Amino acid sequence: MGEASDAVQKMFISYNNIHKSCQKIAIQIMAKGERPDVIIAITGGGMIPARIIRSFLKSRGQKNIPIQAIGLSLYEDLGLDDHVDTIGKEVIRTQWLDFGSLEQHFDSLIGKRVLIVDEVDDTRTTLHYAVTELEKEVKEQQIKLNRTNEETVFSIFVLHNKDKPKKAALPAEMMNNDRYLAAETVPDVWLCYPWEALDIEEHTELAIKQGNN
Amino acid sequence: MGEASDAVQKMFISYNNIHKSCQKIAIQIMAKGERPDVIIAITGGGMIPARIIRSFLKSRGQKNIPIQAIGLSLYEDLGLDDHVDTIGKEVIRTQWLDFGSLEQHFDSLIGKRVLIVDEVDDTRTTLHYAVTELEKEVKEQQIKLNRTNEETVFSIFVLHNKDKPKKAALPAEMMNNDRYLAAETVPDVWLCYPWEALDIEEHTELAIKQGNN
Repeated sequence: MGEASDAVQKMFISYNNIHKSCQKIAIQIMAKGERPDVIIAITGGGMIPARIIRSFLKSRGQKNIPIQAIGLSLYEDLGLDDHVDTIGKEVIRTQWLDFGSLEQHFDSLIGKRVLIVDEVDDTRTTLHYAVTELEKEVKEQQIKLNRTNEETVFSIFVLHNKDKPKKAALPAEMMNNDRYLAAETVPDVWLCYPWEALDIEEHTELAIKQGNN
Repeated sequence: MGEASDAVQKMFISYNNIHKSCQKIAIQIMAKGERPDVIIAITGGGMIPARIIRSFLKSRGQKNIPIQAIGLSLYEDLGLDDHVDTIGKEVIRTQWLDFGSLEQHFDSLIGKRVLIVDEVDDTRTTLHYAVTELEKEVKEQQIKLNRTNEETVFSIFVLHNKDKPKKAALPAEMMNNDRYLAAETVPDVWLCYPWEALDIEEHTELAIKQGNN
């Protein structure tokens, strides 16, 4: 990729920083009285923030919020550079909701508050796909079960939103009602998440130096 | 639970400690040449170690190992004490493998190395259930697809194995072939994972004091 990518600034983020980001957003959600009924983690990136935020969305005596995982990946062109993922156009679905198991213990997503979680909103392609497909499936189920009068509310939580032109949009209704929750909005830098660190002590020190602890 | 539970010792574990545990086990797996073809995370607890260990199971130029999530919970009796989970007998399945999406991009589990990940091996009930059900499903698929000659190899990775009497067993073949991988074996203490911490700075300090950083 040459000089352009060499010059990309690296932002180091510690685990404790991520923990605090999840806590911050959870406090906002609870203050609005919008505790989700189910969390949908986009694997792999969404798994860590999803598990952390769940802790803070639990009130004393309440049950854990169920987590469902969906596997979404963008086709990557790995030929150009080992470090820079070239964003593809198509989303690959490697796992979807298990409505069978979900309904048995949980009913369905119809009429529920659903929090979709991922690590980063880069081009917005994956999040767009997730919301669009989930909304479509819920509507189909509503018609099938004759429950079209119930409102399902989707929110999104990401650790980082990159301030850059997006390739896809999210529903205006979601954006206008503060249901798109990014813990931090950052420039289009290279985000170094702790779970990729070969030396976590050094990584944490760099994050602290950058104020990301 | 009275005095007995009040006296339970708390073990504080930092995020960086968990990161290093994942790294340590990944190095062992790679040294044996047993890189998994798929990781199965038991939600919620297995999500964080599963995502972290994936980073270290990747060689330069290789694709990310796909992660599938399965949701397994034990019935909990929440009536007795807010802090102590009473272990129930039945496992609740809230999500299962999505063989439909999985096969489309990945074939199936038949003939693969499968790494099952959870946070803690307490009574072994959940892990027993996971291995038993996964083995059963793979065998059924093998018969259905006439591929009974292929060997599927299951391994387990947990952050902590509690040294206590277990209520269920894992396959002897797995135990005898070092395919049960616990990063730490600990006494039957109260494990304080960082993702449950209300004050992560204080939690991390306590972990460092206990040498769990």
